[in-house]
Amino acid sequence: MDRITKTVKNIDTIDYKLMEATQKRLDNLTKPLGSLGRLEELAKLCVGITRNENPFIKNKVIFTMAGDHGVAEEGVSAYPKEVTAQMVYNFIRGGAGINVLARHAGARVVVVDMGVACDLKPHKDLVIKKVNYGTKNMVKGPAMSIEEAVKSIKNGIDIFEEEAKLGIDIAGTGDMGIGNTTPSSAITSIITGKPAETVTGRGTGIDDKTLFCKIEAIKKAIKINRPDPKNGIDVLSKVGGFEIGGLAGVILAAAAKRVPVIIDGFISGAAALIAYQLQPKIKDYMIASHCSCEIGHKAVLDYMGLRPLLDLDLRLGEGTGAALAMGIAEASIKILTQMATFESASVSEKIK
Amino acid sequence: MDRITKTVKNIDTIDYKLMEATQKRLDNLTKPLGSLGRLEELAKLCVGITRNENPFIKNKVIFTMAGDHGVAEEGVSAYPKEVTAQMVYNFIRGGAGINVLARHAGARVVVVDMGVACDLKPHKDLVIKKVNYGTKNMVKGPAMSIEEAVKSIKNGIDIFEEEAKLGIDIAGTGDMGIGNTTPSSAITSIITGKPAETVTGRGTGIDDKTLFCKIEAIKKAIKINRPDPKNGIDVLSKVGGFEIGGLAGVILAAAAKRVPVIIDGFISGAAALIAYQLQPKIKDYMIASHCSCEIGHKAVLDYMGLRPLLDLDLRLGEGTGAALAMGIAEASIKILTQMATFESASVSEKIK
Repeated sequence: MDRITKTVKNIDTIDYKLMEATQKRLDNLTKPLGSLGRLEELAKLCVGITRNENPFIKNKVIFTMAGDHGVAEEGVSAYPKEVTAQMVYNFIRGGAGINVLARHAGARVVVVDMGVACDLKPHKDLVIKKVNYGTKNMVKGPAMSIEEAVKSIKNGIDIFEEEAKLGIDIAGTGDMGIGNTTPSSAITSIITGKPAETVTGRGTGIDDKTLFCKIEAIKKAIKINRPDPKNGIDVLSKVGGFEIGGLAGVILAAAAKRVPVIIDGFISGAAALIAYQLQPKIKDYMIASHCSCEIGHKAVLDYMGLRPLLDLDLRLGEGTGAALAMGIAEASIKILTQMATFESASVSEKIK
Repeated sequence: MDRITKTVKNIDTIDYKLMEATQKRLDNLTKPLGSLGRLEELAKLCVGITRNENPFIKNKVIFTMAGDHGVAEEGVSAYPKEVTAQMVYNFIRGGAGINVLARHAGARVVVVDMGVACDLKPHKDLVIKKVNYGTKNMVKGPAMSIEEAVKSIKNGIDIFEEEAKLGIDIAGTGDMGIGNTTPSSAITSIITGKPAETVTGRGTGIDDKTLFCKIEAIKKAIKINRPDPKNGIDVLSKVGGFEIGGLAGVILAAAAKRVPVIIDGFISGAAALIAYQLQPKIKDYMIASHCSCEIGHKAVLDYMGLRPLLDLDLRLGEGTGAALAMGIAEASIKILTQMATFESASVSEKIK
């Protein structure tokens, strides 16, 4: 636990004073006041997070974490469990959606086995931090032990810090795990206090009957496990997943290292909720990339007061939304650091 | 007029059959069906527009057109008229918002003087297609003659075709013109049939009193000039602008050449309305980049049935929103052409 406590304590309030000074600089650039809207907000936020007046984005990293879920045996997904491992190999070969979009954004993808249900072939581009061979079925008891929950978050912190040695100017989160919208909906229901049926969607594309079973499974898991909504680690152990814990660790570590972190979709959002319960200051370090079609995602964003950048009806996960939003965040910083001022460009200022 | 008629006639229905085949290809990629949402729609649209199964985006071009407005003498803007010319020089030196964001997107910016009120110093990066030295004050009569309206659209077509010789795989629109939200609101009110007060906003940042005068000016201009809402050229001549006509020409020419065109903000939207009145098929060739804070923009998008990609509270113009959205459009095509299939990646397909 010490490792997590230390990381949580290292998360400071962002630098509002420097952000104010940054707004003044933005107001001197050749554009009407505030006319670049949220791009200006983003640039300021990156300054406030990094405490660097002129942030420079060179190293972009997306952490795509994989894990299996015992609850998949309840038939909550449209895809067989084997797909988790198959997709990890796809990530390593560079053929998945996240690979295409990360290349487009100029980001590297760190693929992590946090808890895939089988032994994966070692590969130079695969980080193995397996906590266990998939979680247990949360309908029948806790998905994992408290020790495993702590270990999954700790592993996430370790991976971030390891990668930070190679340089990380901006981070993104991503997930892979057949069945993982089910724990994400459970986490969302518990932490936001919203009924399971209002935060549970069709995941990879299930029919009405399966959706009904999924909601029932979530209700049952909450009833049996009685997680404490205020205790992120308890929620994670009762109804979470190893990749979700790992991503919560990545988010905490990023904030502790003053690195902006772009949150992908619903599963990443559930991980963010876990991190938020451990340290509410984390909110200011997060950039919400998009709002997923998965209905629980809006509840997640609303709970933390985050507004997404993109409106693209995405529901793939893997970090795909984060990769797309990374380009927008980078653009915001270029606005701050590359635009001419009224004075340097000899442009007249506002009359009134 | 012949040139415009010919271009309008050359705009064909997009290739729905090829789009259907493209959806089948998208469904074979390693992701749940439809899970990349609007990114899949965009990829399909680019195929349908270009009639190319594997569109390739290399040449990205943003047309940033400038013009002055007689109605500025009514005091409708927060900035002095000289800013139009000053900003054109800023574009040429690469210091404006559009330059920063176009560089970020890997796009070239074509800066055009469509009707700036003074003679600009010739420069290799400035295209001079001046129709006149600014429009007349539309509160006192037509902003321009019918001949000038036709010429401004024709000039836009010419510029696009000239640039197309260097290659254009995707185009974006952008504007500069002190006072140009006033004609844009007038165009929007006339074509969508919505009252002026519901489609008129604060432009570069005017106060309540100025906003009131701006709305009055628009109402008066519509009353005096009695434009025919169904006749795009008539509307353009009565209450338009030279850069707005030029952008309408760019949009028409792009569609005729089967090039997807990304529409920037409110002024570009008004230009799109003019093009739409000339050829409703144009709608399928347009990608709406964002929804501006300028309240009339939503009416523009709703009228044509376009849904914006970004939610960034932008209101700068110049093509800044188009530049940001260009990265998303490019990403969508990479998804189609670079992702692995279930078969090639040996990933199991959906169970049910």
